[in-house]
Amino acid sequence: MEKSRMTKSIPAPAVRRLTLYLQHLEELLARGAGRISSRELAESLQLTGAQVRRDLAYFGQFGRRGVGYEAASLAGNLREILGADKTQSIILVGAGDLGRALARYRGFPQRGFKLVAAFDVSPKKIGKKIGSLTIQHIREMPAIVKRDNIRLALLTTPATVAQEVADQLDLAGVRGILSFAPGVLQTSKPLAVGQVDLASNLQQLAFSIASEE
Amino acid sequence: MEKSRMTKSIPAPAVRRLTLYLQHLEELLARGAGRISSRELAESLQLTGAQVRRDLAYFGQFGRRGVGYEAASLAGNLREILGADKTQSIILVGAGDLGRALARYRGFPQRGFKLVAAFDVSPKKIGKKIGSLTIQHIREMPAIVKRDNIRLALLTTPATVAQEVADQLDLAGVRGILSFAPGVLQTSKPLAVGQVDLASNLQQLAFSIASEE
Repeated sequence: MEKSRMTKSIPAPAVRRLTLYLQHLEELLARGAGRISSRELAESLQLTGAQVRRDLAYFGQFGRRGVGYEAASLAGNLREILGADKTQSIILVGAGDLGRALARYRGFPQRGFKLVAAFDVSPKKIGKKIGSLTIQHIREMPAIVKRDNIRLALLTTPATVAQEVADQLDLAGVRGILSFAPGVLQTSKPLAVGQVDLASNLQQLAFSIASEE
Repeated sequence: MEKSRMTKSIPAPAVRRLTLYLQHLEELLARGAGRISSRELAESLQLTGAQVRRDLAYFGQFGRRGVGYEAASLAGNLREILGADKTQSIILVGAGDLGRALARYRGFPQRGFKLVAAFDVSPKKIGKKIGSLTIQHIREMPAIVKRDNIRLALLTTPATVAQEVADQLDLAGVRGILSFAPGVLQTSKPLAVGQVDLASNLQQLAFSIASEE
């Protein structure tokens, strides 16, 4: 399967929408849906039908006019393309409040992500539980990443140490980091970094309502 | 001050970058920076100098060639344009793990957001503390929103009730919701909704590393 060649050219915003299509399809399937048109899929996500058809065409899914997509098979294909058809192990670095919340966040296991280890440096935290896991010292991280072939990490440390931790994760062989620390991480090329900047999101929202007034 | 006319036309990605410039400038100021060039600002955020100059030109800030921007005054202008120069009150609905983490998240007060009330429906949670606040029943929410003229809310309920809560917030007069619940909220026009879909972010990251292989 030439997945790499096939998927490399999908632009990031389309990938984001694919995750939304899958999420919406899972809800519809849970309610017993059979077929769905691109228009129905689009409306629920405030997009256009043309946009949906274009996105799905990236991996050769074409609905038929007046018939639409078979929901279960489309969901199956999306799961496969997004890697959600298999469980992916993740680790967490930074066992503060946000780390704790993410460790219990049901959305991750629902999408096939399994938290297998959590790390911190604070002697007060090491040995304590976070969800069902025992918090370990960050110095144990490289061995565990290697042993379990971990590719994804959640970074929830304070901003002041985020870069240092990212470097350690990079060195240990982690391939992608989802960072919740403010500030841009400087990383080597093969490492992918996604950022969730909560305060920036809130600030953008505040700006958008202020500019309506 | 014709702020509405002036800011309305700034595209959302530029607003997002403005929040990043401000964040970075605050860090530099804390370290005693005086002047900064658009190139320095750009490099630290992995953008181009031209992009930075274009973004700052939206509100009439022009650095001088070879001189750059005066960091303190640029930060001041960004704070004003983003509304970060004054404290904005926010409320939180959904006092689960994520709500708890957000209530303690230091990034919000650092950017001028003050959490003034937290709500839930669970009898187990009402009356308990979340940070320094006492969790109240959601039925108290409309009176508090009105009394304190609250315009922004964080929504951290389960996805199943998110739409219902969003409708209640809308009705109460809240103007912007930052939702952490998966799924798209259908809201009336004047209400602005930002969404932080943690699982979707992780899935996009996983996709991006898979497609490199």
